[in-house]
Amino acid sequence: MELEEIYRLVAEDLAKVRSQIETVAEVDYPPLAEMLRHIFEGGKGIRPALNLLAGKLYHYNLDLLLPMATGIELMHTATLVHDDAIDKSSVRRGRPTINQVWGEDRAVLLGDYLFAKAGEFAANTGNLRVIILFSRTLQTISRGEIVQTDDAFKLEQTRHHYLERIASKTASLFSLATVSGAILSRAPEASIKILQDYGFNLGVAFQLVDDILDFVGTEQEMGKPIGSDLSQGTLTLPAMLLLEQYPDDNPVEELFRKPNMPEKDKLEKIRRAIEMVGSSTIVKQCYQLASGYCDEACHDLGKLPAKPSRQALKDLVDLVISRKK
Amino acid sequence: MELEEIYRLVAEDLAKVRSQIETVAEVDYPPLAEMLRHIFEGGKGIRPALNLLAGKLYHYNLDLLLPMATGIELMHTATLVHDDAIDKSSVRRGRPTINQVWGEDRAVLLGDYLFAKAGEFAANTGNLRVIILFSRTLQTISRGEIVQTDDAFKLEQTRHHYLERIASKTASLFSLATVSGAILSRAPEASIKILQDYGFNLGVAFQLVDDILDFVGTEQEMGKPIGSDLSQGTLTLPAMLLLEQYPDDNPVEELFRKPNMPEKDKLEKIRRAIEMVGSSTIVKQCYQLASGYCDEACHDLGKLPAKPSRQALKDLVDLVISRKK
Repeated sequence: MELEEIYRLVAEDLAKVRSQIETVAEVDYPPLAEMLRHIFEGGKGIRPALNLLAGKLYHYNLDLLLPMATGIELMHTATLVHDDAIDKSSVRRGRPTINQVWGEDRAVLLGDYLFAKAGEFAANTGNLRVIILFSRTLQTISRGEIVQTDDAFKLEQTRHHYLERIASKTASLFSLATVSGAILSRAPEASIKILQDYGFNLGVAFQLVDDILDFVGTEQEMGKPIGSDLSQGTLTLPAMLLLEQYPDDNPVEELFRKPNMPEKDKLEKIRRAIEMVGSSTIVKQCYQLASGYCDEACHDLGKLPAKPSRQALKDLVDLVISRKK
Repeated sequence: MELEEIYRLVAEDLAKVRSQIETVAEVDYPPLAEMLRHIFEGGKGIRPALNLLAGKLYHYNLDLLLPMATGIELMHTATLVHDDAIDKSSVRRGRPTINQVWGEDRAVLLGDYLFAKAGEFAANTGNLRVIILFSRTLQTISRGEIVQTDDAFKLEQTRHHYLERIASKTASLFSLATVSGAILSRAPEASIKILQDYGFNLGVAFQLVDDILDFVGTEQEMGKPIGSDLSQGTLTLPAMLLLEQYPDDNPVEELFRKPNMPEKDKLEKIRRAIEMVGSSTIVKQCYQLASGYCDEACHDLGKLPAKPSRQALKDLVDLVISRKK
């Protein structure tokens, strides 16, 4: 099943989210407008879709969900802008990053602007509970990114530590999307909890797959270079398993022990790590873990109203596992 | 009159703001806690004081003002962390900056964390009007900083342009402090407007004096190197007047035309600019403009209730002009 098919139920409103985002670029300072238009190109829109689909299960009110879904997508965009500036990434979604075109300084400031704008949209829901959840989610994400920076090029990391890291940086926002959709649609507390857990588990699975695709995907499909996690010194699950299962002559270990090796040698280590992961059972093991989170995500969905959007949330789980980009 | 004396009316509650801020540093990830404790040292607390003093004029409710004043100070702190990272400044408030000790990446992420925390405090007022003003203020500040980055090392800048820049980066937050204090204390709309304008004009004056002190202050009093604006390529009013009044053999022009000159030559140009400004009437002219904004700030204060905090707001204006740090 394709993303468009799953989004069908909310396609019209997702287009409205898109329009809202485009209005954000309508500012009267042309250099800012240009950066905003650049960063708003592309994106799968999975977070706003989750928000709207969760809302569809209860008293769907677009006046509340539209600002929320827009705020969530803007917060996501802001974090991407800052991440790319920090990682000095040059390509994202198949296009040059903000820092690549306008420099890191402007990327930091543009991200700040987007956070503020995101906050304004969230505030426009008029719902204090979701506004506070919104701020807390950004705290969780920033904290997770600080941990990731501190952990760069460290070889001794536990699986638990890795899972906490991806929970902070990705699952927290997925969870915000579903929980706020539920709250703004006046879902019962028990259902809010189920949708919160669904978003969280789906987010962990999504990031696990993202980390797998950084080894087995293609640059063209991913819209960014493969092996970028290793090149940043981020130890993801495939790399962790590679370290455990090939203790001798391990390219990840060599890379992490000498993070300042010449670029050519670095690329060679990454190439070899990708090759070793690809020809082992590691990918399968990672997908198994991701599948576990997907099962967990679906576990209580049956307790939610039997509406078409419930099926869409289920289909989205299957897509997250099978996605190639 | 000293700051402490002006703060007297709200000293006890300012101490509570301080405590609130200190609780922010109580996180269970020690590297983050350490950075937070570092950045929370020092600061004059002028913005939270403005917020509380404005509140004192009407129905003062600490349950609302405490989170607001805390949120405002945290937003200010976050902008300082990002500014220092962007400017690669190494000293602030007499101590090493976050980027100097922990690197620029962590400075960006710490700033994000602080913005989020600031937003949560603002949200805790439960007042949607101030929550939205809060997000808009951060948009104004970020946009102002983007303009400043775009303007770096540009010689052709109008006074109007300069004033717009300092209005965005400083006056907007001063104005938020007073206007939100008024709103949360249920001031009448006319008074809210007066306090908004007061904060704005005081903020412009404050930044004008800051820009003067960057030429005539001492590093010890300012807690950061003198001439830092020139070194960043930021054209402030004293530099602008120097360009206008000494068109031949002008160190600012030489510096801005060759921003990549050797550090030694750069320092020599800055030293000479500082000397020329100091031995001219430029400082006096800048203070005259600042005084005009101070007069404007006080213009309608007489229409506010004749309470001790009204006098404190007046005294604060005098202090902003006479301050040496």
